[in-house]
Amino acid sequence: MPQFDVRIGYPDWVDEMVDWDRRFGSDEERMRLAIAVAHENVERDTGGPFGAAIFESVSGRLVAVGMNSVVRLNNSVLHGEIVAFMMAQRRLGSFTLAAPGLSAHELFTSCEPCAMCLGATLWSGVKRIVCGASRDDASKLHFEEGPVFPESYQYLEERGIGVVRNVLRADAQAVLEHYHAKGGRIYNG
Amino acid sequence: MPQFDVRIGYPDWVDEMVDWDRRFGSDEERMRLAIAVAHENVERDTGGPFGAAIFESVSGRLVAVGMNSVVRLNNSVLHGEIVAFMMAQRRLGSFTLAAPGLSAHELFTSCEPCAMCLGATLWSGVKRIVCGASRDDASKLHFEEGPVFPESYQYLEERGIGVVRNVLRADAQAVLEHYHAKGGRIYNG
Repeated sequence: MPQFDVRIGYPDWVDEMVDWDRRFGSDEERMRLAIAVAHENVERDTGGPFGAAIFESVSGRLVAVGMNSVVRLNNSVLHGEIVAFMMAQRRLGSFTLAAPGLSAHELFTSCEPCAMCLGATLWSGVKRIVCGASRDDASKLHFEEGPVFPESYQYLEERGIGVVRNVLRADAQAVLEHYHAKGGRIYNG
Repeated sequence: MPQFDVRIGYPDWVDEMVDWDRRFGSDEERMRLAIAVAHENVERDTGGPFGAAIFESVSGRLVAVGMNSVVRLNNSVLHGEIVAFMMAQRRLGSFTLAAPGLSAHELFTSCEPCAMCLGATLWSGVKRIVCGASRDDASKLHFEEGPVFPESYQYLEERGIGVVRNVLRADAQAVLEHYHAKGGRIYNG
């Protein structure tokens, strides 16, 4: 059989920049971390300008971060949100973040999710998704977002997932523009 | 830092059942493999009733298979199609199956993709998606497919991805029903 063993790990800098013991109280504090992860990913040349983080809603405990890892790990699935979901579920040993006995979780993402990540949000078990930059901000830099429609968000909301947008949007947008200015690769244009 | 190391491998039976050297000529032959993977996943209790396979379009060379691994690997992202994309890209060392120098690839899936997998298809680099069972067949057994609309498939087609449905649909449907009859777990209901 050919070699089929996929391993997904963080880039080295995560250990330096993330304080796993800190509590993140407000939406702005939580979003600031997702944006900082996106920024660091660009600065360290480890991937595209997208970051995410998953928190316990009430306590503000940080469960996992995620950063776009498509080029670094040669894997088109590894958008920031997907890495965050996988790492959070690995850490908690559960395929859903809404398992009995777990408190509610929420996803912060530095940019509105693409079609894949929006679908993944539904299966992940998070109860809320909070976005920084908009689909338009990403599209302007030739990042495609795929078939996401107003009905897609409505579908999530009907299933009890809260949706909030434009939190620290300008800061999140600045990371996209920084990547663009650096001549960053558009890997799914 | 907490432990964050995600490893994705096949269940043991893949090595027994898959002939990696065989050429798969027709759509029916290719779909038969995707369905056989789904069936084996149910029989061996390694996951949900969904299988996928990726082929070189012209040569019929098998590049990777994928099977639903959500419960086995505690990871909500690991639908059959996602596992197939990741394994194919790992094997070819490329984050897109449409990289220069590669011949065209196509995805066969035993059931129409959910919203996440439809989005992932767009980023994977396959040029064609061929489906067995329908969204309705899955929904009847309480498997949710998420926000997929006619416009979603149209979006793929506009970007040059061919879509074919209902290939060996009854055979694919039989695997879904077999899972249901066995009392299989609905992990994202």
